[in-house]
Amino acid sequence: MTKSELTVPEAIRSRRSMKSFKSDPIPDSVLHELLSLMQEAPSSWNFQPTRAVMIRSMAQKEALAAAAWGQKQILEAPVTFVFAVSIRGWEKNMDEILKTGVASTAWPQKFADWIRDNAPGFQKGLGDKEREYAIKDAMIMATTLALAAQGKGYASCYINGWDESKVKEIIGAEQDKNIAIALLLPIGMANAEPKHPGRLPSGKTIFTDRLPSPNV
Amino acid sequence: MTKSELTVPEAIRSRRSMKSFKSDPIPDSVLHELLSLMQEAPSSWNFQPTRAVMIRSMAQKEALAAAAWGQKQILEAPVTFVFAVSIRGWEKNMDEILKTGVASTAWPQKFADWIRDNAPGFQKGLGDKEREYAIKDAMIMATTLALAAQGKGYASCYINGWDESKVKEIIGAEQDKNIAIALLLPIGMANAEPKHPGRLPSGKTIFTDRLPSPNV
Repeated sequence: MTKSELTVPEAIRSRRSMKSFKSDPIPDSVLHELLSLMQEAPSSWNFQPTRAVMIRSMAQKEALAAAAWGQKQILEAPVTFVFAVSIRGWEKNMDEILKTGVASTAWPQKFADWIRDNAPGFQKGLGDKEREYAIKDAMIMATTLALAAQGKGYASCYINGWDESKVKEIIGAEQDKNIAIALLLPIGMANAEPKHPGRLPSGKTIFTDRLPSPNV
Repeated sequence: MTKSELTVPEAIRSRRSMKSFKSDPIPDSVLHELLSLMQEAPSSWNFQPTRAVMIRSMAQKEALAAAAWGQKQILEAPVTFVFAVSIRGWEKNMDEILKTGVASTAWPQKFADWIRDNAPGFQKGLGDKEREYAIKDAMIMATTLALAAQGKGYASCYINGWDESKVKEIIGAEQDKNIAIALLLPIGMANAEPKHPGRLPSGKTIFTDRLPSPNV
């Protein structure tokens, strides 16, 4: 284990929302490993709806920063991930996913058949929550990436402040109702040492068996 | 570092969706550390909308498993986290959060004032996406917990299959439109060794600067 591989608690506790990055590039070998790690993130039915777009060219960074009300960490970081999702991507990918699952011996053929028989109905039955479910999968992947990066000494910043239609336009999906944007996540070397802003006492956010009352 | 503290890549790569758990309890000291780690998860504006409910009594486990179409891992695991969110919890908590941020010296008073001036408008401007944004924060926390548990030798399973109104009823929030359910996550000792079902080739899920075409 190299010094730069943090344990999980070390990565979780040292992560801060980084608002300023050094311009140092991420070596290809490190980026490759980060992509490999983020692909380990699970998803509903293993349908893998996330479409991660790495914004790397300066022209695209400038457009993306503008769509995020000028947040400069997007300009500074060597790469910003746009976590988009394909809400119905599973319709095209399900056959390949089921075949891979069976070939890996992780899924008995019966289980793959059960998914084929049940998943489409479940997904379509989500109705107006189809988008939400795809976005949940993207957030698992984004969090996996942020912690993987932190573990190797790279900072990140979860960014929710952006105009969705503009971000879609930047990645070339302005006409595609099947694409939703979950999050922006710049990754790079920290150029600041933000302090911890604290948390609410756990009595206000963690409970056993039931919520204590309405309006928590 | 004890043997049981995995590095981040080890935790990410060893995690599988666990469908069967041993009944071994999680020692209080471990559970306490897991709660402390998951509270490190960031959230929009640090507003901390997640309300995590640990389902621990057998009666509650049985009710929750029934609301999740009988998924037995909820009965078996010593604890299942219901990741609920309080969509407008920030209205009650913002003052305390801003005070804590300033007291920690992480946030200059000016920054806290800027949040007070801007965050409520941003949040309310989300319109029908207010729920989605709160759920995104819950997913960051759930993923943080799953990896923290994995790092200490405890398995988990992201569960999306449940009836939201029944889950809300179980935790006592059936009447509260402010509460939404993001995810169920049982945690415990693995009682199986699931294999990896594989992933789509990265050419279908990871891109640079733009999505390649519609319908990805």
